[in-house]
Amino acid sequence: MSEAKKRILTGDRTTGKLHLGHYVGSLSQRVELQDEYDTFILLADIQALTTHFERPELINASIYDVAMDNLSVGLDPNKVTIFQQSQIKAIAELTIFYSMFVSVNVLRHNPTIKTEAANYGYEDLTYGFLGYPVSQSADITFCNADLVPVGEDQLPHMEMTRKIVRRFNDLYGETLHEPKAKLSSCSRLVGLDGNAKMGKSLGNAIYLSDDAKTVSEKVRNAVTDPNRITLKDPGNPEICVVQAYHKVFNPTEHEDVCNRCRTATIGCVACKKRLAEKLNELLDPFRDRRAYYEAHRSEVKEIIMAGSEKANKIGEETVAKVKKAMCVSID
Amino acid sequence: MSEAKKRILTGDRTTGKLHLGHYVGSLSQRVELQDEYDTFILLADIQALTTHFERPELINASIYDVAMDNLSVGLDPNKVTIFQQSQIKAIAELTIFYSMFVSVNVLRHNPTIKTEAANYGYEDLTYGFLGYPVSQSADITFCNADLVPVGEDQLPHMEMTRKIVRRFNDLYGETLHEPKAKLSSCSRLVGLDGNAKMGKSLGNAIYLSDDAKTVSEKVRNAVTDPNRITLKDPGNPEICVVQAYHKVFNPTEHEDVCNRCRTATIGCVACKKRLAEKLNELLDPFRDRRAYYEAHRSEVKEIIMAGSEKANKIGEETVAKVKKAMCVSID
Repeated sequence: MSEAKKRILTGDRTTGKLHLGHYVGSLSQRVELQDEYDTFILLADIQALTTHFERPELINASIYDVAMDNLSVGLDPNKVTIFQQSQIKAIAELTIFYSMFVSVNVLRHNPTIKTEAANYGYEDLTYGFLGYPVSQSADITFCNADLVPVGEDQLPHMEMTRKIVRRFNDLYGETLHEPKAKLSSCSRLVGLDGNAKMGKSLGNAIYLSDDAKTVSEKVRNAVTDPNRITLKDPGNPEICVVQAYHKVFNPTEHEDVCNRCRTATIGCVACKKRLAEKLNELLDPFRDRRAYYEAHRSEVKEIIMAGSEKANKIGEETVAKVKKAMCVSID
Repeated sequence: MSEAKKRILTGDRTTGKLHLGHYVGSLSQRVELQDEYDTFILLADIQALTTHFERPELINASIYDVAMDNLSVGLDPNKVTIFQQSQIKAIAELTIFYSMFVSVNVLRHNPTIKTEAANYGYEDLTYGFLGYPVSQSADITFCNADLVPVGEDQLPHMEMTRKIVRRFNDLYGETLHEPKAKLSSCSRLVGLDGNAKMGKSLGNAIYLSDDAKTVSEKVRNAVTDPNRITLKDPGNPEICVVQAYHKVFNPTEHEDVCNRCRTATIGCVACKKRLAEKLNELLDPFRDRRAYYEAHRSEVKEIIMAGSEKANKIGEETVAKVKKAMCVSID
């Protein structure tokens, strides 16, 4: 029966520990979907190099961190395949093959490449950065993924992968499996500072690995309605970060909290305290699992190595088919 | 003692059979150098895809053709390592790694890329074509080549490889071996039609695999001094293709042939006949060896597979070192 499951490809760049934004936007769904789908989780260390090639030590530490983040939220290594991108030779090989028929101009005009280049302040792109949509197509196709969970902003990448697959099949005969986007319904989590996005590099994140005290402290410093000076001032929850978090992490009390804020019957201190409690309730089981894996680091390595071996086998089959289709195999 | 030999990396794109121009410009030196150097010969099928991705069947046939061309001129499979680029995963992997710190603009302004793009009439480069100097750097460094025989026109590629090596070693610590160009002293062979270059795609080539009759016929149609109409007209050997070939393939008689042309004491027919004889003298032993390999095609495959296996082992070691330096290996 398990053969009939559709395969999902998802993953994370190994450029730092994951935070609540990743949990809300991606990891929580992975946990929900792990029984229904054959889930492949990519530790994207090669893609991390496209922006962090000058910080290899961060990437290295993050391989374990990101694996543990995934395991700590409840992804079961007996159900999902966690693997390291740099170990999958097929991804490198397919990237090279696909690059033969993807034009530089198409990559240059890719809206995500443009936006991200602007975000990173790149004036002069590296060849690797320019090509990362090609590399992503290799990530997705090497394992014949059926579905890729993405946010709206990543749809252009998915469209490129689908185009590459179709072009390949047109040029060399039906060989590659065309994946589909699985559009995520989750909204983005705002940063503790009110920034629209919680970001690894923005200093406004609660990490999945933060301890309870750190979480309470970070919540205590979160941005609220600046016009609410004293407990007696009625607040405007619409512009309060803490309210936005209650909505996501404390939905049953959310309406009540908003009402009490507007009527000045709850203060920010108490409101934040309650949020911190709810967050720590969520995070406590994550911490327990993490503590286990921190104490059994070699087990994490085994999980990554076993997942990579499995992924490599599938990748070798795909590369063999691709080489045969492109006529570079010899008989 | 053999460990002390310096390693040479050379090779050919698998986009068709090799011709006398390749022999004069490259293959003849390979034969001379095969005892003194540890010679690695790349069957560049991946690079062939950068320009011939729409003609996979040509690339496929050419893998055997080019291997046989190399064997037929006297390269000894017990001395040299003949291997297929697409089988060497390390080349794909290193290409990806190097692409992280090579800028798109540097590639765009590479003079060879510019010239070749113009030659092929490309308005819109593919990502793979733009990156082939990066891929060449991987070809050269995966096997720690000391020397790469090149013509003047390929010096920019070598300089790029050396720059990539230095940049890598600067970023991640001394890891890669910096290769040197071995500038070839050989001049280019003109085409039978008087074109400055004998080219696979120009229809002006004598192939190493041409039979004696074909060679005689092609020489009979070679371009001579157009002002020499009859046997009695004195000729100008300076503008005669046949003279240029006598110089290369019949050096002992070259001066005499030129003098007899200028004094109208040899006619073009006799002059061409003599050249054809000399060419066939050169090519006859090549034909014998080729006939052997044509009759033992599985032996050619074994040579390529054994060479690729050897190259893969060396490549795996290089990739392991590179991954360790770039911190994408896990311990």
